[in-house]
Amino acid sequence: MGKSDRDWKAKVEKLKAKVAKLRSRLEAAPAASAAKAKAAKPVSPLAPESFPALPSIAGAEFAAVEAGVKYQNRKDVMLVRLAPGTVIAGAFTKSTTRSACVRDCQAKLALKDTAGEGAAIIVNSGNSNAFTGKVGEEAMGAVTGAVAGALNLPVTRVFSSSTGVIGEPLPHEKITAKIPDLVARLDADAVEMAARAIMTTDTFPKGAAATVQGEGGAIHISGIAKGSGMIAPDMATMLVYIFTDAKIAQTSLQKMVSRHVGATFNSITVDSDTSTSDTLLVAATGQSPAAEVKGEVAKAFEAALKGVMLSLAQQVVRDGEGATKFVEVRVSGAASDEDAARAAFAIANSPLVKTAVAGEDPNWGRIVAAIGKSGAAADRDRLTIRFGDILVAEKGWRAPSYREEDGAAYMKQSDLIIAVDLGQGRAKRTVWTCDLTARYVAINADYRS
Amino acid sequence: MGKSDRDWKAKVEKLKAKVAKLRSRLEAAPAASAAKAKAAKPVSPLAPESFPALPSIAGAEFAAVEAGVKYQNRKDVMLVRLAPGTVIAGAFTKSTTRSACVRDCQAKLALKDTAGEGAAIIVNSGNSNAFTGKVGEEAMGAVTGAVAGALNLPVTRVFSSSTGVIGEPLPHEKITAKIPDLVARLDADAVEMAARAIMTTDTFPKGAAATVQGEGGAIHISGIAKGSGMIAPDMATMLVYIFTDAKIAQTSLQKMVSRHVGATFNSITVDSDTSTSDTLLVAATGQSPAAEVKGEVAKAFEAALKGVMLSLAQQVVRDGEGATKFVEVRVSGAASDEDAARAAFAIANSPLVKTAVAGEDPNWGRIVAAIGKSGAAADRDRLTIRFGDILVAEKGWRAPSYREEDGAAYMKQSDLIIAVDLGQGRAKRTVWTCDLTARYVAINADYRS
Repeated sequence: MGKSDRDWKAKVEKLKAKVAKLRSRLEAAPAASAAKAKAAKPVSPLAPESFPALPSIAGAEFAAVEAGVKYQNRKDVMLVRLAPGTVIAGAFTKSTTRSACVRDCQAKLALKDTAGEGAAIIVNSGNSNAFTGKVGEEAMGAVTGAVAGALNLPVTRVFSSSTGVIGEPLPHEKITAKIPDLVARLDADAVEMAARAIMTTDTFPKGAAATVQGEGGAIHISGIAKGSGMIAPDMATMLVYIFTDAKIAQTSLQKMVSRHVGATFNSITVDSDTSTSDTLLVAATGQSPAAEVKGEVAKAFEAALKGVMLSLAQQVVRDGEGATKFVEVRVSGAASDEDAARAAFAIANSPLVKTAVAGEDPNWGRIVAAIGKSGAAADRDRLTIRFGDILVAEKGWRAPSYREEDGAAYMKQSDLIIAVDLGQGRAKRTVWTCDLTARYVAINADYRS
Repeated sequence: MGKSDRDWKAKVEKLKAKVAKLRSRLEAAPAASAAKAKAAKPVSPLAPESFPALPSIAGAEFAAVEAGVKYQNRKDVMLVRLAPGTVIAGAFTKSTTRSACVRDCQAKLALKDTAGEGAAIIVNSGNSNAFTGKVGEEAMGAVTGAVAGALNLPVTRVFSSSTGVIGEPLPHEKITAKIPDLVARLDADAVEMAARAIMTTDTFPKGAAATVQGEGGAIHISGIAKGSGMIAPDMATMLVYIFTDAKIAQTSLQKMVSRHVGATFNSITVDSDTSTSDTLLVAATGQSPAAEVKGEVAKAFEAALKGVMLSLAQQVVRDGEGATKFVEVRVSGAASDEDAARAAFAIANSPLVKTAVAGEDPNWGRIVAAIGKSGAAADRDRLTIRFGDILVAEKGWRAPSYREEDGAAYMKQSDLIIAVDLGQGRAKRTVWTCDLTARYVAINADYRS
């Protein structure tokens, strides 16, 4: 017995309504599940268009191989050979639980300069070898020892870094087995490949370069970095290697690095979490035809070096986990340098400021609150807050000229400036951060599972 | 012309298949979109089963009304009248941009004790009257002045709080218009209604009580609080009002409050953001039949008061925005009290620790990193980390007895203990926090839009 057309029609209409309802519910659901967003690992929307052309540095050669430390089907170990005469300066995490590699680099840099013998840097991704006790120190020793043997260097001239998961033993034999292969591949032009081999949660490789006219020839600077923030101890340690052919004394180079690390790598924050492995090494091979760096050339070289450091630092923020906005926080009018830093980092680290930026909400009240909690000397009636050029608040209240629509339109940009004047003194500090998005939570809640 | 039954059947089957497909896609999508989650405003999964039965306090009467400050169709202003003889103690946010109400309460508590004349507390939700310049001070003066007039009290005995959005002028005339109505409704048993009137992003009203046997009768303590953290300057300021019929000198009461505010309200953090309006007021009416609090009774009273403070503080964390886990962080073995606090808050505020907890990931490496960045004296080889009773790490590495499955099973609980011994000294600190979820981001990115 068949149904009537009318019955069938009713049934079909009912099902069609159900389909429509389910479709609209599906549309209302968030576009991508956390897992999906993670699997896709899209390049950060704040990434530069492409990796820059880095000049090769006479006296520096690079190689990268697949050692399978943790990742499969990608290069995860890089080696740099630096010619005799190279001097090395550095800066490191201040974490009290810093890794074996960091402690080892610090100890080697404290030795008297043995530049005559050349040097090497070996770096692996996938395992940070941090908080692995004596076993970790032995693993580090095995790797640096093998590099020293293969390149005929004293082990005190072999620097190393490891980045990746904490607390797992480093499978050092996977790395040492590849050292002959690495040595065979050393190539002055392989710097981009090296930049890729040290990536972990990074969505793009980071490079920056500069050229300075020295007396008698050009001086080149090429730097690479990895990191998705200062930030994640697991997979986003910040590692930075800068190479130059400048002829410069180690002490001069170290002074320059120390002078600028504060305004560059120590002025960025993704989530206020400091890595146990953060490492910056700057190597000068001295092979430029230019004369020794001094006088006006030293000034130009130092400015160029700072520029490379700042570019790499900002690229780390632009690759901040889940970031959709790049934010420059400028604090001026502070009573002291310490107050300026406190206020700037309080704003840059405030989850409420960072979520407001993610939501494109010009919520200046949260900036006021962040300043208030910072401990910096401040007075409600002397505060001035600007979004870019837009005066938002002054004299203890919203500025009369401020219109919420202007603030809202400004927040839609991907690069933002939050400028605060405390009206207390003349100290300043600028720091860089990114927004806090649901994707940050998804990446970090799901990381090991 | 009708279709054949077969045609209809085919069509129906096709639609059914579509429905099934859409259903399974919907199931795969995240449970609730941010907007939906926000609209529903479900009660925190960490909330207590119900509001506790609070004893009425002789000499304290409560009233709440709908004034429409910002919210519609809910009570948003509460008034407390306190009988002559009431003494009041307090503790407040240390923010340098604290609100007009906070400054006013602090100034009034600093005056010589005028308990003889009674007192009042008036609180509105929906607008924090913070960062509103002179206009804000005038609004606060208008409200407290009107209450003083209506209750025949000196204005120096009228305390006020405002909680809600920053930087918007407080529509004080909406509040003052309701004062006769509030006065008419004053009722010793309306404390739960008062607890509800001060809620903002709270998902449940917060109350706690205790009774102490005094000499000659019982002494009661009833407290209410609001807050979804220490945290949000906009909508989640922490306000706490505790009432007791104890006979006690103002200076003794203030000392007790000051002694315990550190281990209670100043030991909680949802997102490290401090409000501009945080206020704790403790009022003792002296109307208990019991004799003046002293000796052993004072000890019992102080312990009970601390218990009420701790319960309310923990309820604030249990209502942390987006929270799904309640986390106790215990630090012991620190070299100093300051170090203990630094390490405890570094763990409790670490976005990486908090996202790992949200993801039920026993990621102890992030705890090591948080300790490392805290600045507290620590030594990798002397650290001990436990999840509840499970020994996770010791002597610079994962404990030999630790199995990842045990850690993973532990993290599935809703109440967690992270215990760290620094092995440096004897100082301790315990703090409470919650996890950091995508819902936290959704709530705070969308708040004003």
